[in-house]
Amino acid sequence: MRTFPDIRFRDPQVEMAHGAGGKATRRLIEGLFLPLLANPALAALSDAALVDLNGAPVALTADAFVVKPLRFPGGSIGELAVNGTINDLAVCGARPVALMAAFILEAGLPGEALQAEVTAMAEAARRAGVSVAGGDTKVVEHGLADGMYITTFGFGLPDPRLRLGSHEVRPGDRILLSGPIGDHGITILLARGDLDLEADLRSDTRPLTALADALAEAAAPGLRWMRDPTRGGVASALNELAAETGRGVVLYEEEIPVRDEVRGACEILGLDPLHIANEGQLLAVVDPAYAEAALAALRRSAGGEDAALIGEIREDPPRAVLALTRYGGSRVVDMLVGDPLPRIC
Amino acid sequence: MRTFPDIRFRDPQVEMAHGAGGKATRRLIEGLFLPLLANPALAALSDAALVDLNGAPVALTADAFVVKPLRFPGGSIGELAVNGTINDLAVCGARPVALMAAFILEAGLPGEALQAEVTAMAEAARRAGVSVAGGDTKVVEHGLADGMYITTFGFGLPDPRLRLGSHEVRPGDRILLSGPIGDHGITILLARGDLDLEADLRSDTRPLTALADALAEAAAPGLRWMRDPTRGGVASALNELAAETGRGVVLYEEEIPVRDEVRGACEILGLDPLHIANEGQLLAVVDPAYAEAALAALRRSAGGEDAALIGEIREDPPRAVLALTRYGGSRVVDMLVGDPLPRIC
Repeated sequence: MRTFPDIRFRDPQVEMAHGAGGKATRRLIEGLFLPLLANPALAALSDAALVDLNGAPVALTADAFVVKPLRFPGGSIGELAVNGTINDLAVCGARPVALMAAFILEAGLPGEALQAEVTAMAEAARRAGVSVAGGDTKVVEHGLADGMYITTFGFGLPDPRLRLGSHEVRPGDRILLSGPIGDHGITILLARGDLDLEADLRSDTRPLTALADALAEAAAPGLRWMRDPTRGGVASALNELAAETGRGVVLYEEEIPVRDEVRGACEILGLDPLHIANEGQLLAVVDPAYAEAALAALRRSAGGEDAALIGEIREDPPRAVLALTRYGGSRVVDMLVGDPLPRIC
Repeated sequence: MRTFPDIRFRDPQVEMAHGAGGKATRRLIEGLFLPLLANPALAALSDAALVDLNGAPVALTADAFVVKPLRFPGGSIGELAVNGTINDLAVCGARPVALMAAFILEAGLPGEALQAEVTAMAEAARRAGVSVAGGDTKVVEHGLADGMYITTFGFGLPDPRLRLGSHEVRPGDRILLSGPIGDHGITILLARGDLDLEADLRSDTRPLTALADALAEAAAPGLRWMRDPTRGGVASALNELAAETGRGVVLYEEEIPVRDEVRGACEILGLDPLHIANEGQLLAVVDPAYAEAALAALRRSAGGEDAALIGEIREDPPRAVLALTRYGGSRVVDMLVGDPLPRIC
């Protein structure tokens, strides 16, 4: 029995926030998973792990989906499970080769509901040109799994043209965003019907492969880092980048695309759109010499028409995200704290 | 939208039996998953899928673990999740390269319980010489998920010396079993405390890599098929073999190792040890010319001391498993029907 001196996770119990993709999730991963399961692939803490296979890297990723409700405007858990895993590979610069899917089903789930989700997975996989090579099914008693949970694993091949990672990011690099933020999170929130709010919104769930390919094609030598800002939103993804690089991430707040419906719902609920989950947006950091070409490439691609240059990397403030506001002010944008929108994916 | 003409799954709702590894599971996989997600890797329906990577095969496997209780004599869900996935690779003749793990945690789970399982996973991975390269964590509300579910994904490299598969199996081949059956399933059943039964039993959870390696070393050219008989037990694994080959599987019932405690519990509960789950046993079909060497190799390996030659492949009865009983009689051994032991892994 080895001892593990680096375990710093002391939270007495698991809370919803540990699954929200913000500070508590980070504390759990860095304080418990990393020290116990330590290895170089895991330590990179990227959306996908790069593992050596006979001298060549392959990309692996795993995601559990527990979204509630199972179906929502614009998508469903099955489609999300396929797209989400494909996207984790895409933002690591990897072409998806195969997926695996494991279902945890609740006894009593109508057969038609299961068929609908397997169909959604099949369609999403076909759209992305990837196969579901296998999987597993477990059933738990009625009352234990809200219909179903789906875990997907993705396996892909890194694009040899790309060198991505927060260690590649330098001051002066520009930050691009593929389109409006918060659609997925607010759609889910409204679909639950707990709030007396309505809006004509749909989840943005989609595969990001084409957008990532377009960026690689237009700007491979200058492409430094990509991420799909899901749980915890753009704010959490960029705070992680700031922490990993030690640099400052400066956002031009008025350049960040947000639909009126999302902005309105966030104002009513006291939420920041930068903290809301997306399932079809891509953040990229590029060398300034490639920023214009990269932005044009995104805007030419389906799903990237509203892409914007939303900020840059600076020396200051170190390890923080600062938003420059409309009227010349600025505010610090923190990681998500707590879990205002549980079970979003 | 494509139409899928081959969907034959008509069960009105998901039942516990669909997760039990027997007939209902088979009906779900063949009637719903296969027609919708059709591809060659999936169609092989093996414990691991073989996927082509630049002309070379890699083995992929996924397993969800929902065992109740989380800890039991001889193991825990974390250890099971690592060993189970390693074993799916091992019985496909693949050396594990990396694992991924996705946790679905129940809010309120004590931090110590989570730490215990991550520690168990780390220890099991280290014992098997494989790393956990990444993963995901989601949290669901208190009252769901029974503490935690863990899904593991395994990625491995097939041993080029081996040609395994039910299509390689021929009449006259011998069937080997690595050790006593039913320990895991009966241990879990007793650990739940619902029955007024006690027995000195422990789960057999263990990595099968060393046993599979020993077989490959001793009998690679004659090794035809391997399987770890988990859910649904030896009976379900061999019924699948009979169905896939169209041959008869004939068992010498008195040669099958079963501990007295397991036999006793099964008699009281009206269960057949052949239907009880194992988590550390290996079934192998070998060419008769290699049977003796293969059996000796198993018996020399840790965990294989009680290995036995338990049967053979015959022309008859086609597509069925027949057990020859102690006194010259015989009985048909069917797949598991229903789910007498839910949430066993």
